[in-house]
Amino acid sequence: MSPMQIRKMDDMHVHLRQGDMLHRALSHTAVQCERALVMPNTIPPILTATDLVKYRESIIEALASVESFTPLMTFKIVPGTTPAEIHSLKAHGAIAGKLYPDGVTTNSEGGVTDFKALYPVYKAMQDEGLVLCLHGEMPGAFSLDRETLFLDVLRTIAADFPKLKIVLEHATTADAIKCVSELPDNVAASLTVHHLYLTLDDVIGDRLNPHAFCKPIAKRPEDRDMLVKAATSGNPKFFLGSDSAPHPIPSKECACGAAGVYTAPVLLPALIELFERNNQLERLEAFTSEFGAKFYGLPLNKDTITLTEESWTVPDEYHGVKPFLSGSTLKWKVAADKTTAAVTDARATVRAPRA
Amino acid sequence: MSPMQIRKMDDMHVHLRQGDMLHRALSHTAVQCERALVMPNTIPPILTATDLVKYRESIIEALASVESFTPLMTFKIVPGTTPAEIHSLKAHGAIAGKLYPDGVTTNSEGGVTDFKALYPVYKAMQDEGLVLCLHGEMPGAFSLDRETLFLDVLRTIAADFPKLKIVLEHATTADAIKCVSELPDNVAASLTVHHLYLTLDDVIGDRLNPHAFCKPIAKRPEDRDMLVKAATSGNPKFFLGSDSAPHPIPSKECACGAAGVYTAPVLLPALIELFERNNQLERLEAFTSEFGAKFYGLPLNKDTITLTEESWTVPDEYHGVKPFLSGSTLKWKVAADKTTAAVTDARATVRAPRA
Repeated sequence: MSPMQIRKMDDMHVHLRQGDMLHRALSHTAVQCERALVMPNTIPPILTATDLVKYRESIIEALASVESFTPLMTFKIVPGTTPAEIHSLKAHGAIAGKLYPDGVTTNSEGGVTDFKALYPVYKAMQDEGLVLCLHGEMPGAFSLDRETLFLDVLRTIAADFPKLKIVLEHATTADAIKCVSELPDNVAASLTVHHLYLTLDDVIGDRLNPHAFCKPIAKRPEDRDMLVKAATSGNPKFFLGSDSAPHPIPSKECACGAAGVYTAPVLLPALIELFERNNQLERLEAFTSEFGAKFYGLPLNKDTITLTEESWTVPDEYHGVKPFLSGSTLKWKVAADKTTAAVTDARATVRAPRA
Repeated sequence: MSPMQIRKMDDMHVHLRQGDMLHRALSHTAVQCERALVMPNTIPPILTATDLVKYRESIIEALASVESFTPLMTFKIVPGTTPAEIHSLKAHGAIAGKLYPDGVTTNSEGGVTDFKALYPVYKAMQDEGLVLCLHGEMPGAFSLDRETLFLDVLRTIAADFPKLKIVLEHATTADAIKCVSELPDNVAASLTVHHLYLTLDDVIGDRLNPHAFCKPIAKRPEDRDMLVKAATSGNPKFFLGSDSAPHPIPSKECACGAAGVYTAPVLLPALIELFERNNQLERLEAFTSEFGAKFYGLPLNKDTITLTEESWTVPDEYHGVKPFLSGSTLKWKVAADKTTAAVTDARATVRAPRA
């Protein structure tokens, strides 16, 4: 079969980390994506224009010379964020602000509890054309209800700021898909690859599986099926935001396992299999490389990415991080250019399969 | 405050393990319980009268000389169990048979999928006055639905064998409580201590917590509240069966964490706090030491156990196993007799509290 070419992707939600992990993990995203919306929940977080400029520089510095990649920069909206800072952030290249409700995920301590108190911030973002990215979970609620209970917050902000672009990040429930579908065009949702594959049973159904543990937690099979339906529907409100999050293996496998799935290494091959299975391969490129850009008001990427039909086994580990679907065989392989492929391969560790 | 005395408990569902773990963990149960129904999912399992006699001997051998404890022996019902074996098991002291649906919990591979095929076995058990203990989860179903979907199996067997005593083990849902309440008096349910405390959020709500991971998985807050209501209701259909299951810390904290909570060390102190909180302390003794015995047709225990009001911190570890509520402070302490208490204390390890 001849190679497949698709427009390079926009990953509209990714954790690139800092320091050593940034250097080791960035290639997986940069090889497949022309751009990615970089989450600001670093330590310390990206709160100001100064933080943002410095973080962007460190990302660009971490790129291999062969990689053509643009980080789309975001900032973290905290209770102390001011409209003045919003204007400065915009002037320095921010394209979105991310709001984490208090305590709902990794590094979200001290997050927002009073969503209305931030109305001056939303107003400044609306004026500046910045996108509001919401981690849509209600703090303090029972885990399986957190997203559904948050939808009222989404509805209220959307009604009060009809010109503010809002993304419900990593939607996980049929309720969220229905809500976003019904709201006006200023509201969209990003979908991860892992939530298109997993249900709660992958985490707790057999033995405990820390590598499938993420926030929001994967839900029921009916929810997962509705996410797949939305992703493959051709509805421009739903686009890729992988939420790929590299955690070192010990922090996943030991007690108190961290939440997050590292999907970047398999992003496109995993999506191809999913869209093929649903007979919607012709809708893949819009999901990965068009709808997000259009919602964010960005031009479409010009470069393409080449995949060859060449089955490969996802390694157990890349630079100390276990990737999503490790041990599985995937049918399509990202060819990119030879230099980049070599870089990526050199960083992988394939262990002997377990008995 | 003066010490509290209650009749020694019957733990109508416990995993005593084998070999070294049996020797190390047995005291926690033997100090608080006069009797315990010993689960047969050992490796290899207890299938025959010969297995049962040998396992009972190893338990009695493992008892400290000061402990007065009677193991109530069970056997594992598998697709190959025969009525002839049932008669032999009864003759050698079995009081119950435990049925594990295929693959639903620790060591349940090769379990039952065709519940009707075992009708000759249920008939033999009914004739012999043996109790049928059911792990009530439907194989292959979504984890949160497994117990509810199994209730039809329970209803059918109960209708077809009206004189067979049946226990739905470790009930976890409001649906199960309602079902057992409505069925005739030959059907009862055991309740664990951990399911009276935990919800799914204790496993996945914050960081991943392997020590709260068990089968059946803890459910919603409404379910947990209904279990507490049943335990403290004074309804003799609901009695203690702790399902206490010691797993070595590495098998809990590493990838592929095993399911099971080790409640034996805190059994009675934890129950006292719970019943006190619900203003039903006067119903505790019936739940721990009467209803189970009556359902199983056993005389009530004559010995009592003494507790002193003396706050203590549950250790991080007993003989390589992390106990339920480790790090928590409990108000009541089992006094038992000094010899036994010394044995138990000598086996505990208290680590410095974590920051």
